[in-house]
Amino acid sequence: MTTNEALNHYTQQCQQRVEQALDQLLPSTNTLPTRLHEAMRYATLNGGKRIRPLLVYAAGQALDIAQERLDAPACAVELIHAYSLVHDDLPAMDDDDLRRNQPTCHRAYDEATAILVGDALQSLAFKSLCCDECMQADAQIRLSMVEILARASGSRGMAGGQAIDLQAVGRDLNLAELENLHIHKTGALIRAAVRMSTLINPAADKALTTGLDHYAKCIGLAFQIQDDILDVEGDTHTLGKTKGKDFAQEKPTYPSLLGLTGAKEKAGQLLQEALQSLDRFNTEADPLRWIAQYITERKH
Amino acid sequence: MTTNEALNHYTQQCQQRVEQALDQLLPSTNTLPTRLHEAMRYATLNGGKRIRPLLVYAAGQALDIAQERLDAPACAVELIHAYSLVHDDLPAMDDDDLRRNQPTCHRAYDEATAILVGDALQSLAFKSLCCDECMQADAQIRLSMVEILARASGSRGMAGGQAIDLQAVGRDLNLAELENLHIHKTGALIRAAVRMSTLINPAADKALTTGLDHYAKCIGLAFQIQDDILDVEGDTHTLGKTKGKDFAQEKPTYPSLLGLTGAKEKAGQLLQEALQSLDRFNTEADPLRWIAQYITERKH
Repeated sequence: MTTNEALNHYTQQCQQRVEQALDQLLPSTNTLPTRLHEAMRYATLNGGKRIRPLLVYAAGQALDIAQERLDAPACAVELIHAYSLVHDDLPAMDDDDLRRNQPTCHRAYDEATAILVGDALQSLAFKSLCCDECMQADAQIRLSMVEILARASGSRGMAGGQAIDLQAVGRDLNLAELENLHIHKTGALIRAAVRMSTLINPAADKALTTGLDHYAKCIGLAFQIQDDILDVEGDTHTLGKTKGKDFAQEKPTYPSLLGLTGAKEKAGQLLQEALQSLDRFNTEADPLRWIAQYITERKH
Repeated sequence: MTTNEALNHYTQQCQQRVEQALDQLLPSTNTLPTRLHEAMRYATLNGGKRIRPLLVYAAGQALDIAQERLDAPACAVELIHAYSLVHDDLPAMDDDDLRRNQPTCHRAYDEATAILVGDALQSLAFKSLCCDECMQADAQIRLSMVEILARASGSRGMAGGQAIDLQAVGRDLNLAELENLHIHKTGALIRAAVRMSTLINPAADKALTTGLDHYAKCIGLAFQIQDDILDVEGDTHTLGKTKGKDFAQEKPTYPSLLGLTGAKEKAGQLLQEALQSLDRFNTEADPLRWIAQYITERKH
């Protein structure tokens, strides 16, 4: 197997792992209220890329943490992400009909159900950090995870970023303001994914965890720039969501500020910076390197 | 001072206490995103009755726990309640214009902001259990509180109850089904309020905590029955929300199933049962007794 094949195999294995863990965590459609439970599963188990769980596992691998100890934070961060997509797609927010090539949650069910799905997925994210026995982490570590995740999701994290985004529609932002928007909206949760993993190994060298944190900061921003580029260059089917949406809604983007070439250069610089942050690691950080490459080269 | 005056004084002091704690916990309107932060404060600091925080303090008083150790769970449970009201009032849900005699959050701001306000208040609730130093509770106790609150808010708790409620509109429910609805929708969070307090004193006699839990179960249901009665008997101004809403929306209620007299009898029985559950306590449980009376006799 070439290195690339091995890494492909590794990510697939992680994806399957988190899929199974989410399936077990989500409420059964045999229990009441069945429609809500069905919609929660619909909104979560829908073939997402699972970038955030992948980061949890890959950061854990870099710090030599067994995968079964990482399932709970991997699920928790994905549940927060899934809830945010359901609420972002609502008519009052981005008003999107398509997500991962399927009708969005409020189109497949109804708006009220979609609001409750998001609310219940957020609660489930925090619950999942409390009761997973396999994590083998003491209560202080779990509690720190709850705090990191709550901060990353809250009004000074993801929800705050979404609010800044809403206020930015139709307005001109400069590069610093755009960066601030995405540090909150996308970056905070990606950083939280990596930080939760580093918590599990409190003995890890400080320089290593600082490197991992900087890596997460860089790829968080690179991820958003690539998203903006794909909104211009991608096609709706490959993206699995409506293309050209940002442009149509007059949202400020990296290509609109830097031009397409400038945006690609910026993504490339962030990729290099992310890789440099992993200098102190050997091959154990290859999955993280692979994810950084993937994020800046992906087509959807 | 008569007993009643003393209890009135006690509850006012608790209300002021939680008001101040919430004020400190909520994000400042001087920090970005200002509009979201302002709306979060608007939706929370609006003169609510603070029944759930009162229960946290009163259960704590019954178990001889200092008030400063109860501020964090008192705030957490109220933040969850506040978020649920913001989302319940949305056009896709109950579509309400008035809450506590003010325009609802989505009327005062806009729908997108109201969705984010609810989301961010939920995150803040969990965060508040992690970082309050005054709680003086070890990590395991705090983590158990997170778990209790997450379960009570989630798809098998409050959000689940709301989903059952949505499915019930225009349909006939029998008494057991209506009770099941409210055990989830209102009861779970009220029970969580009392259970979080009992956690802080792990040495408390098991019989005492079982009594407190049963008390919470009874008053949770009594609270909802009284809500239903007020929807028929109250007036919009005193209620601070639109009267006759349940009837107009063809929602099943206790008066519609039992008649107004039957509903009042049922509330009275639950009050007696709640008071009996406190038999093992002396005057230290008087605030709990007072709250039970208040819940079944309130006019708004």
